Amino acid sequence: MKYKVGIIMGSKSDLPVMKQAAEVLEALQVPFEITVVSAHRTPERMVEYAQSAISRDIRVIIAGAGGAAHLPGMTASLTPIPVIGVPVKSSNSIDGWDSVLSILQMPGGVPVATVALDGAKNAGILAAQILSVADDELLKRISNYKEELKKAVFDSIDEVEKHARK
Amino acid sequence: MKYKVGIIMGSKSDLPVMKQAAEVLEALQVPFEITVVSAHRTPERMVEYAQSAISRDIRVIIAGAGGAAHLPGMTASLTPIPVIGVPVKSSNSIDGWDSVLSILQMPGGVPVATVALDGAKNAGILAAQILSVADDELLKRISNYKEELKKAVFDSIDEVEKHARK
Amino acid sequence: MKYKVGIIMGSKSDLPVMKQAAEVLEALQVPFEITVVSAHRTPERMVEYAQSAISRDIRVIIAGAGGAAHLPGMTASLTPIPVIGVPVKSSNSIDGWDSVLSILQMPGGVPVATVALDGAKNAGILAAQILSVADDELLKRISNYKEELKKAVFDSIDEVEKHARK
Amino acid sequence: MKYKVGIIMGSKSDLPVMKQAAEVLEALQVPFEITVVSAHRTPERMVEYAQSAISRDIRVIIAGAGGAAHLPGMTASLTPIPVIGVPVKSSNSIDGWDSVLSILQMPGGVPVATVALDGAKNAGILAAQILSVADDELLKRISNYKEELKKAVFDSIDEVEKHARK
Amino acid sequence: MKYKVGIIMGSKSDLPVMKQAAEVLEALQVPFEITVVSAHRTPERMVEYAQSAISRDIRVIIAGAGGAAHLPGMTASLTPIPVIGVPVKSSNSIDGWDSVLSILQMPGGVPVATVALDGAKNAGILAAQILSVADDELLKRISNYKEELKKAVFDSIDEVEKHARK
Amino acid sequence: MKYKVGIIMGSKSDLPVMKQAAEVLEALQVPFEITVVSAHRTPERMVEYAQSAISRDIRVIIAGAGGAAHLPGMTASLTPIPVIGVPVKSSNSIDGWDSVLSILQMPGGVPVATVALDGAKNAGILAAQILSVADDELLKRISNYKEELKKAVFDSIDEVEKHARK
Amino acid sequence: MKYKVGIIMGSKSDLPVMKQAAEVLEALQVPFEITVVSAHRTPERMVEYAQSAISRDIRVIIAGAGGAAHLPGMTASLTPIPVIGVPVKSSNSIDGWDSVLSILQMPGGVPVATVALDGAKNAGILAAQILSVADDELLKRISNYKEELKKAVFDSIDEVEKHARK
Amino acid sequence: MKYKVGIIMGSKSDLPVMKQAAEVLEALQVPFEITVVSAHRTPERMVEYAQSAISRDIRVIIAGAGGAAHLPGMTASLTPIPVIGVPVKSSNSIDGWDSVLSILQMPGGVPVATVALDGAKNAGILAAQILSVADDELLKRISNYKEELKKAVFDSIDEVEKHARK
Repeated sequence: MKYKVGIIMGSKSDLPVMKQAAEVLEALQVPFEITVVSAHRTPERMVEYAQSAISRDIRVIIAGAGGAAHLPGMTASLTPIPVIGVPVKSSNSIDGWDSVLSILQMPGGVPVATVALDGAKNAGILAAQILSVADDELLKRISNYKEELKKAVFDSIDEVEKHARK
Repeated sequence: MKYKVGIIMGSKSDLPVMKQAAEVLEALQVPFEITVVSAHRTPERMVEYAQSAISRDIRVIIAGAGGAAHLPGMTASLTPIPVIGVPVKSSNSIDGWDSVLSILQMPGGVPVATVALDGAKNAGILAAQILSVADDELLKRISNYKEELKKAVFDSIDEVEKHARK
Repeated sequence: MKYKVGIIMGSKSDLPVMKQAAEVLEALQVPFEITVVSAHRTPERMVEYAQSAISRDIRVIIAGAGGAAHLPGMTASLTPIPVIGVPVKSSNSIDGWDSVLSILQMPGGVPVATVALDGAKNAGILAAQILSVADDELLKRISNYKEELKKAVFDSIDEVEKHARK
Repeated sequence: MKYKVGIIMGSKSDLPVMKQAAEVLEALQVPFEITVVSAHRTPERMVEYAQSAISRDIRVIIAGAGGAAHLPGMTASLTPIPVIGVPVKSSNSIDGWDSVLSILQMPGGVPVATVALDGAKNAGILAAQILSVADDELLKRISNYKEELKKAVFDSIDEVEKHARK
Repeated sequence: MKYKVGIIMGSKSDLPVMKQAAEVLEALQVPFEITVVSAHRTPERMVEYAQSAISRDIRVIIAGAGGAAHLPGMTASLTPIPVIGVPVKSSNSIDGWDSVLSILQMPGGVPVATVALDGAKNAGILAAQILSVADDELLKRISNYKEELKKAVFDSIDEVEKHARK
Repeated sequence: MKYKVGIIMGSKSDLPVMKQAAEVLEALQVPFEITVVSAHRTPERMVEYAQSAISRDIRVIIAGAGGAAHLPGMTASLTPIPVIGVPVKSSNSIDGWDSVLSILQMPGGVPVATVALDGAKNAGILAAQILSVADDELLKRISNYKEELKKAVFDSIDEVEKHARK
Repeated sequence: MKYKVGIIMGSKSDLPVMKQAAEVLEALQVPFEITVVSAHRTPERMVEYAQSAISRDIRVIIAGAGGAAHLPGMTASLTPIPVIGVPVKSSNSIDGWDSVLSILQMPGGVPVATVALDGAKNAGILAAQILSVADDELLKRISNYKEELKKAVFDSIDEVEKHARK
Repeated sequence: MKYKVGIIMGSKSDLPVMKQAAEVLEALQVPFEITVVSAHRTPERMVEYAQSAISRDIRVIIAGAGGAAHLPGMTASLTPIPVIGVPVKSSNSIDGWDSVLSILQMPGGVPVATVALDGAKNAGILAAQILSVADDELLKRISNYKEELKKAVFDSIDEVEKHARK
C-alpha cells in the first residue's frame, strides 16, 4: 500500500473518540499518521498540514472536532484530497448538534464526508474504502471485515432467542 | 479512467437535486451511471444494484433520498465500496432533519459519507476525489476546479466593495 | 390463536428495551418469536426473515432499532403484513431523534406503525390489538388489561392525596 | 369484509390531508366511515365515538390532528381496538413537531400507531394491513398494491437515466 | 378565601415535581386539593373531575403530565375555569420537548396557561395570582412573596462579590 | 365588571396577531386597554406600565413579543397580577422557537402564563377566564362561548362525511 | 475617529443581509471597509485579511456567513482584535441552525461575538459600541441612536391604541 | 487601564460558570467588578446597575443567565456600552436552548454579543479585546495569551502521536 491516512483532531481531549479510527485502520492494515491540529489555536499549522499532506503520501484525511467544529471543513478547503469529518460530542457541545452541523453543512464546492456523531470507527472504515479504489487487496480485507460483522450478529442470536416463551 | 460512479435516487422527484452530482462529474470528466432505485418500493432491485456494482466497474456510489432515507445506508450494507449519502429535503420531510439523521447516524461498521442537505454537487466532487486516489490526472482537474471557485470569489469583490463609503 | 408476532431487533444491545414487548405479549397470551436481525450487518437475513414471515404464521412484526434505524422500514418494504417500529435510544443516538425520525417518516406506500421512543411495551400491546381483529377472546383480554391500568391509578390516589393540607 | 375503518379528524381543515386515507381504503375496497370529532371542542362526542366504535363493526380507528394533537391518544384511551395517529402539519403547528410528539409519545399501556407527518395515505394502508389479519383476500390486494408501487418506480427509470452522459 | 385550587397529575411519578405547587400554595395560604387523574388510563375520572370542579369551589386547576401530555388540554376542554399546565420531564420524555409542546400548542378556543418544564412552583404562584383577582388580601401576600425573592438575591450579593479582585 | 385587561406588544408589527386577543375580549364583553410597550426600546415605559397597572384597575396583562421576547417575563417581574405571554412568530424569529422559549422558561418565582405560538386569541380567552373568578356572569359567557365552538364542529360534520363512500 | 470596522462576508449572496451593517455604521459615522472573503474558497485571502487588519487600523471585524459558517471563527483565530459573527440564513442552511451553531459555539480561548440570525444591523451597532470605548463622541451618537428607537415606538402608539374599544 | 468590566449574573448558582470570566480577566490584568443582579427578582437593581455603569468607569458588561435569560438583553436596553451575554445551562434549562435563544435573538437596535453556552471564559477574553481598542498594552497581552493557547496544543502533540503504529 503506497498511500496513508492522516488522522487529525482539534484537541487532545478528542483522542478517546478518534483513536477508534486508528484502531480500525490498524486492523485493516492501512498505514496512518495521527496528530493534533487545532483550527482555532494553531491555524498556521492547519494550513501547513493540509497543504503538505499529498507530499507525505496522504490521500485521505480524517478530521475530528467538537462544538463549532471548523477543522474538517477548513482542511477540505486547503487540499484536493477527500476529507472525512467526525463530529465529536465534546464537553462544550450542545448535545452534539453544533459539531454535526458545522461539519456537515459545507457550501457547494468544498465537501466533507461526514460520519455519525462520535463515529470515528466508521471514519476509519470509510478511509480504507476510499484507499481501496487503488488497492484490490484492501478491498478484499474490507469485504472480510463486513463478514465478521455479520458473524457477530449470528453469534448473538442464541442469547436473544432464549427470551422467547416455551 | 477505468472506474465509474453510480448515482442512484429513491424517487424521480429527487432528480432536480441529484442531477447536480451528474453535472459536476461531467465537468470533471468522470464517467457515471444514473438511475432510480427505491429502498422501500424496489428492495430487490436495490440488493441487485449494490451487489453487482463492482462488476460494472463502479467504485463509488452516490445515493440520494429524503424523509426516512434508507437507500444510502442499505446500499452501504450491501457493498464494500464507499457510499456517499445525499439527504434530500423532499416534500415529505420535516425541514430535512429526518433525511439528514437517517443517512448520517449509521451504526459502527457501515459508514455512509454524508454531505449537506441537498448537497448533490458536493457528492459529485467527493466521488471524484475518491476516484482520484487511483488517477493523478483527475486529482489535477479537481485542483483546477478549486482554483475556479477561488476566481469566482475574486470576481465578486468589486461588486461588494462598491457598497463601502467614499 | 393461530397467528404469531415476530419480534426483531437490530442488535443484542436493544434487548433490555425490546424484551418488554415479549413480556406484555406473554401476559396477553399471544404467541411470538424473538430474534436478532440487523438491516446493516445481515441484510440478506432481513430479506429472508421478512419474506418468510407469513409462511411461519407471523401476522405482525415488531422491529426495534436505534440511530439511523432502517430495520423497521426495510422490513415493511418486504412484506404486506403490518410492521410496528420501536425507536430505541441507543448509545449511538442523538437523544433519540435519529431513531424516531428514521422510523416514523416513511414515504407514501410503505407505513411503519411507530410507537414512542423505547416504547416496546406499547409495541407489544399494539401487536396484540392488531391480532385481536381475528380473535375476540384476545380483544377481551386487552380490555381487561386496560382495566388493570385504571386500577393501578386508583391505587395510587391515597398516596398522592395525603400531600393535601389538613 | 365484515369490519370497517373509522376515520376521524379534529377539524374540517384537516380534510385535505385526511381524505387521502379514505381514497386508499376505497382503492383497497375496505369499508370506512369518516367524520369530524374534536377532542377539545367536542370531548363528549369523542368519548361516545370511541366507546361505540366496536358496536358499529369498526375495528381500526384512524385519527388525525395538528398542534397539541390529543385526539388519537384520547381515542386510544377509550377503546381496546388499534388506533392509528396522523400528525397533521396544521397552520397552528410549529413545523409539525408538536403534532408528531403529542401523538407519538404515548405512555406505557396506551399505544397509538403513529405514521409520518401528513401521512394519511400510509394510515389508510396500515388500517387495511391490520384488517387483513382477518381477511386473506385483502392481504392479497395489499400485496398487489405494493407491486404497483414497484411498477411506478420502474416506469420512471427511463426518464432519469436519460440524464446520464453518452 | 372561598375558592380552592385543584392540583392533578397524570401519574404518581409526577408527585416530586407537582408537590412544589402544593407547597407554594400552602405558603400563600391558598386552599387546594391534590390527586391523581390520568387522561389515558382513567379518562372517565378526568371527565368527572373537570366537570364537577366548579361545584367543589375549585376555580383554577393545575394539571401536570409528561410525554404526550394530554391531561391539561383535555381538562381545559371540559371546564370553563382556567387550567394551568405543567410539562413534566418524565422518564419517557424526549428531553421534555414532547411534554412542553403537547401542553402549550392548544388550538384556538381552548387555552392552557403553560409554565416552564417542571415549573410546578410557578404554577402554584400563578394559581394564587388568578384567585387574587377576587381576594385583595391574597394579592398582598403575593406582593410580599415577591419581596422575599428580592431579599434572597440581596443576601447572595456578598458571597458573589468576594470573587472580585482586590 | 370592575376590572380590565391590559394588552401590550413589543412592536406595532405584532398587531395583526395581538388584535385577536382584543377581538375575543370584545366578544366576551371584557373591558381592555391596548398599546405598544417595548422592553428593549422603551424599558422605562415598561416599568411604569407594569407598576401602575393595578391602579388603573388592570388585573391581567397580556404581553406579546417575538424573537428574544423579554416583555412578558419582565412585566411579570414588575407586578403581582397574572401575566399571559403570547410568543409571536415575528420575522426575526427562528421558526418561533426563540419566542416560545424566552417566554415560557421563566425561573421559579416569576411565572408567565404562556399560550401557543401566535395564540393571542387563546390569551384573550384565558384573560377572561381569570377575571371570571370575580364575575360569575362572565363565567357564564365563557361557557356559552365554548358551546359555540362545539356547534361549529357539528356544523362541519356534513361537509366531511360526504367524503365517505356509498 | 482613527479606527475602522472591517466587514467581510463568505459570499456575494450574503450582501443583502450584510449591507445593513454598513448602513448603520454610516449612520453612526464610523469608517469601515467591506469585501468578500471566503473561508472555504479563498483560505489564504482570509489568513492575509485577518493578519493585516490591525495594520490597516481595523479594530473590529464583522464577519457574516451561512451554513457551516467558519469565516467568523477562523478570522477570530487569526487576530487578537474582537470579531463579531453574523449567522446568515443562506439558501443552503437548515433553517439557520447550522449558521448559528457553527459561529456561536467557539471553544475556550477564541470568542466570536455572535448576534441574531441575519442580525447584521445589530453587528454594526455592536461594532460602533466597541469602538466607542476609545471615542466618547461616538458613545454619544450611540445614545442618540437609542433615543430614536424609543421615539419610533412612541410614534406607533396611536396606531395601535385605536384598536381598543370605545 | 482606566476602564473596568462589570460582570453580573442572574443568580448565585451561575457563579461556577461566571467566575471563569473573572479569572481570565485577572490573568489579562483587566480590572472588573462582579455581583448578582436578577432581571426577574430585582428589576429595579438591574435598571440602576445598567444606568450607572458608565459613571463607575465600566465600559463593557458581561451578563450571564439561564432559562428565559433576560438579564443580558435588558441590560443592553439600558446602556449604550457593549453587553456580552453568557447563556448558562442552568438546572431549569431545556438543554441550554432557552438560554441561548433568549440571549442571542435580540431585535434590531439592541445587540447582545453572545458567546457559547457556558462560555464565560470567552466572555472574559472578548471583554478584554473590547477594552483593548483603547489600550495597546492590553492588545499585546491578548496576543501573548493566544500564543500560549498555541503552545498548549504543541505540548499535546507527543501524547497523541504515540497512538500511531510503528
